[in-house]
Amino acid sequence: MLGGPILGIDLGGTKSLAIVALTDGTILSSSYKETPSSKGREAVADVLAECAVEAASLAGIPLSKMGAAGFAVAGLVDRRNGIILASPNLQGWNDVPLASMMQKRLSLRCVIANDANAAAIGELLFGAGQGVKDQIFITISTGIGAGIIAGGRLYIGASGTAGEIGHMTIVPNGPKCGCGRYGCWEALASGTAIARSAAEGISAGRQSIIPSLIQQNPVQLSAREVFEAARQGDSFAREIVSQASNYLGIGLANLINIFNPELFVIGGGISKEWDSIMPQSWALAQERAFSLPAQKARMEKAALNDFAGAMGAVALVSDEYVWT
Amino acid sequence: MLGGPILGIDLGGTKSLAIVALTDGTILSSSYKETPSSKGREAVADVLAECAVEAASLAGIPLSKMGAAGFAVAGLVDRRNGIILASPNLQGWNDVPLASMMQKRLSLRCVIANDANAAAIGELLFGAGQGVKDQIFITISTGIGAGIIAGGRLYIGASGTAGEIGHMTIVPNGPKCGCGRYGCWEALASGTAIARSAAEGISAGRQSIIPSLIQQNPVQLSAREVFEAARQGDSFAREIVSQASNYLGIGLANLINIFNPELFVIGGGISKEWDSIMPQSWALAQERAFSLPAQKARMEKAALNDFAGAMGAVALVSDEYVWT
Repeated sequence: MLGGPILGIDLGGTKSLAIVALTDGTILSSSYKETPSSKGREAVADVLAECAVEAASLAGIPLSKMGAAGFAVAGLVDRRNGIILASPNLQGWNDVPLASMMQKRLSLRCVIANDANAAAIGELLFGAGQGVKDQIFITISTGIGAGIIAGGRLYIGASGTAGEIGHMTIVPNGPKCGCGRYGCWEALASGTAIARSAAEGISAGRQSIIPSLIQQNPVQLSAREVFEAARQGDSFAREIVSQASNYLGIGLANLINIFNPELFVIGGGISKEWDSIMPQSWALAQERAFSLPAQKARMEKAALNDFAGAMGAVALVSDEYVWT
Repeated sequence: MLGGPILGIDLGGTKSLAIVALTDGTILSSSYKETPSSKGREAVADVLAECAVEAASLAGIPLSKMGAAGFAVAGLVDRRNGIILASPNLQGWNDVPLASMMQKRLSLRCVIANDANAAAIGELLFGAGQGVKDQIFITISTGIGAGIIAGGRLYIGASGTAGEIGHMTIVPNGPKCGCGRYGCWEALASGTAIARSAAEGISAGRQSIIPSLIQQNPVQLSAREVFEAARQGDSFAREIVSQASNYLGIGLANLINIFNPELFVIGGGISKEWDSIMPQSWALAQERAFSLPAQKARMEKAALNDFAGAMGAVALVSDEYVWT
């Protein structure tokens, strides 16, 4: 791995995080800023640069002493050319040359990675997946993303977009997904799917305490209220969580059969509702997958939380952990 | 790779094939024998040994001069310990230590591999997949099996059973699969699935020329008659082939999103009906997958036919092409 401190930057839809870290995972400083998503790409790049400068300043290390800067970004990424090909969080960000835009601002070599891929490397090297060569990191929140670790490295595929497991079809005529297709895993088992099922049921007249739990203004139902209602014994909410658990389990079973991984590391907002959803999902995955790979697989909660992407981005400035 | 001629043996449910080949893929000899599947494991091992001895004799090379023997076997395989964990073709073959059984008979180091995994390596090194680092070999016949090539090597997973893509769930409440679960890809898009759909429709009174095309005695409907009837314009047969094409396409789309492969190499009996099924499948896969990885992926027909497994088994006697 590269020597010297590295900048790791996680570009999120609402907030962005920059850290300065050593290649052994020691974090020297961090800085958060709101991402001005609606103001266009140059404004976002400016804020990322400010964030990086602040993190460097907090660490007491000039930018010029950094080995490189790594960026974790939601979306399809062309690693080699440093381009964001498409992003769900950043509307209209197609073919954005983020690496060169940031290189201009920071005068550092810049490398970009998909955020779930980066988090997978973060967890492999510094988090819940340490020492496990064959594992899959899955982040379940508004969408479902992943990073595939095969033989101790990140598998990114022929053009760098591997790991879009959230868009495997589980129910061919199922609900519409954000990607425009139908019945994707993400449209059945993500936080968005849980919120949508709840909203549909309530519109159709199902009795539930869910509406009374909504605190946002304007009123917007999220998966959080569904989980809370389920915890309070609401039978409609329990039904929805149970359905999402089952779909989550089917997808996990598919991945067990396809990859025979030793470990799944689960991150994202839904993982914070672990006891409500993961045990049932895992039991179904064990039942639906072949027993030999199912017995081999374990599941762990991600350990690095919001820092996983930025820490992985630090490691991904070199090709050491990527099949290229 | 190991020097010297190598024995490659493909243990099939009905026939077994032994070849003697050089590590550059040159085949020096081959020998076929019927597999006495119903007579138990020792009888099968004896026939494999006879097959090997005959191939060695035809090549004019004594067994003792062979570098090793590689075996390709349908089923879940423990590569490290040389054990067949479970096999669909060989009833009751659970935990069979084939490597040591054959080592006793041949006095050679013996290495076993899953047959689709072996064929994937065969096609990678000597067939349709040469020079392509990220590819998936898929065999579609009575079942659907695969070998995943990532970064130029076979990915076998944490315990050696990766690649069971035929058992990814595509329709959670779909038809029962041979594995005992429901709605697996294999239960929707294999030759078995096509034959089953045809038989069900005919039982239910659908008009079709399919029954008149059956030549086997006792009467048994296979996918072959369905494809033949479709070619002759039978509308029921066309409907079934079209449905299987669609399910095939959904599974391919899933694999495009998950792996972002450069190439699919398609083998097995169904690939012989290429024009009837693959173009429609591919069109749907292109439509259902993300466009960036979809545009990157190509599809080719397997080139080695019946020799793929044995040739791959030759290469797999060393770990050179496996992520271990």
